Amino acid sequence: MEKIAVIGLGLIGGSLALDIKDAFGCRILGVDRPENAKKALEIGFIDEITTINKLTDVDVVIIATPVDTVVEIAAKVLDLIAEDTLVFDVGSVKEEICKMLGNHPKRKNFLAAHPIAGTEFSGPEAAIKDLFSKKVNILCELEKTDRKIANKAFEIFDSLGMEYKYMSATEHDRHIAYVSHLSHVSSFMLGKTVLEMERSEQNIFDMAGSGFESTVRLAKSSPNTWTPIFLHNKKNLISSLEQYIKNLIEFKEFVEQDNAKEIHNSMSDTNHLKEILKGINQKQQHNK
Amino acid sequence: MEKIAVIGLGLIGGSLALDIKDAFGCRILGVDRPENAKKALEIGFIDEITTINKLTDVDVVIIATPVDTVVEIAAKVLDLIAEDTLVFDVGSVKEEICKMLGNHPKRKNFLAAHPIAGTEFSGPEAAIKDLFSKKVNILCELEKTDRKIANKAFEIFDSLGMEYKYMSATEHDRHIAYVSHLSHVSSFMLGKTVLEMERSEQNIFDMAGSGFESTVRLAKSSPNTWTPIFLHNKKNLISSLEQYIKNLIEFKEFVEQDNAKEIHNSMSDTNHLKEILKGINQKQQHNK
Repeated sequence: MEKIAVIGLGLIGGSLALDIKDAFGCRILGVDRPENAKKALEIGFIDEITTINKLTDVDVVIIATPVDTVVEIAAKVLDLIAEDTLVFDVGSVKEEICKMLGNHPKRKNFLAAHPIAGTEFSGPEAAIKDLFSKKVNILCELEKTDRKIANKAFEIFDSLGMEYKYMSATEHDRHIAYVSHLSHVSSFMLGKTVLEMERSEQNIFDMAGSGFESTVRLAKSSPNTWTPIFLHNKKNLISSLEQYIKNLIEFKEFVEQDNAKEIHNSMSDTNHLKEILKGINQKQQHNK
Repeated sequence: MEKIAVIGLGLIGGSLALDIKDAFGCRILGVDRPENAKKALEIGFIDEITTINKLTDVDVVIIATPVDTVVEIAAKVLDLIAEDTLVFDVGSVKEEICKMLGNHPKRKNFLAAHPIAGTEFSGPEAAIKDLFSKKVNILCELEKTDRKIANKAFEIFDSLGMEYKYMSATEHDRHIAYVSHLSHVSSFMLGKTVLEMERSEQNIFDMAGSGFESTVRLAKSSPNTWTPIFLHNKKNLISSLEQYIKNLIEFKEFVEQDNAKEIHNSMSDTNHLKEILKGINQKQQHNK
């Protein structure tokens, strides 16, 4: 692999570029708005700024733009590329893109990937090394990607130290709504509620402990990234929100009724998450 | 100070005992259920197991039991102690205890404190050194505590490295509902929702990233500690939950209506928390 293009030079695209440059010593071409592209060049994780139209002779194209732009960009890129170029995206929603590209003549050049990695920061400056090591990469509809072309992707992901899970795009979107998208809404709305109610921010600052900090951490995430994710996984996000709201209302009723037994039960049942979180935490630690 | 009694030998009581023993080299008497008291003695943060009835000649009594037991224990202890003994509690709810002890003949021996510190773990084994350093200690109705007796408390809290905020018990309970109690419910209900919907725990494990881990961290907290806190701050918790649920429903409606603008707005308004969180985070880091 000599030339790899990255479209979208934020946290994910930038972090991929950093590690790939290190691993393969290849030339990285970057596509983004002028200010982001310039920053990426300054930071040094791309070697050259280019535009989509010029991506006719690259080995790999990585699409790491907000999910509402991925379908259009992917279709355009697939139209342009050489016979054996690999194109993959890294978006948090997979059903729509798989459906929309399903009949593209170059569908076999495309791989739908979702590396489960990130931080609450965004933009080229948020790019960090080793973000993907020991993290899970969810690959959807792998059977629709040409095996030789898919092997290029595995070469890259292996070099990043990633692990793999395979599932349908539909399954992916349903599960990810619960384990990722819902957490983000929950955190954003918690932050919003506290800001609305605590008119004095000094009070939040003084009285909040590490618990608050951890629960609202995701509320620092970028609205530009997350607005399209929520809208593109609308159906699943709405069911997960409905279930969450139902549980909150039920809990509130238990409190209203002084029902200590049910309050205690619903918490102790949930405590069971400890074991699962222990594993996730070990995955994170591994990566530090 | 030669003899200090700690009633309730869990995360908070145990961590206080550890630091106080270090700072003052005094004898620590512990009161708890036999299994906890034995563990505390083994770990070594108490020197002797005793019972409440015997606390007639100690310098300080710290009450660190679940909030539904604090009023009764505090009243009993105040009946027993010497004229200049300090009694303070460390519970997360302050209005009820201040009200119930308001007319106690030894009210001037009592100080209502809430050190904002903790982890999601519980029991004597959860006790750690330096838990309180640089943390805020909220003191309620300080004017009702005898100044000389209160000075003993400051001697202890200063040695722990704590900072102080003063407010009425009513104010405390209203603010803490938002910045602490609501976070706990939000986290527990998020955990519950995900466990209900993801019947395969392997999926949670594989697909969850650090975002999920951080948002549900508080769902590991002890139901024995938190059930009474929620019930004893019922009124404030219910209003904060109502506001939170209202915001979640509104957000869900924006998603249903594909209202990208409002979704984006509600997130970007909340992003403003970044600055506040930065400060909190620095407080935490300070302590590591």
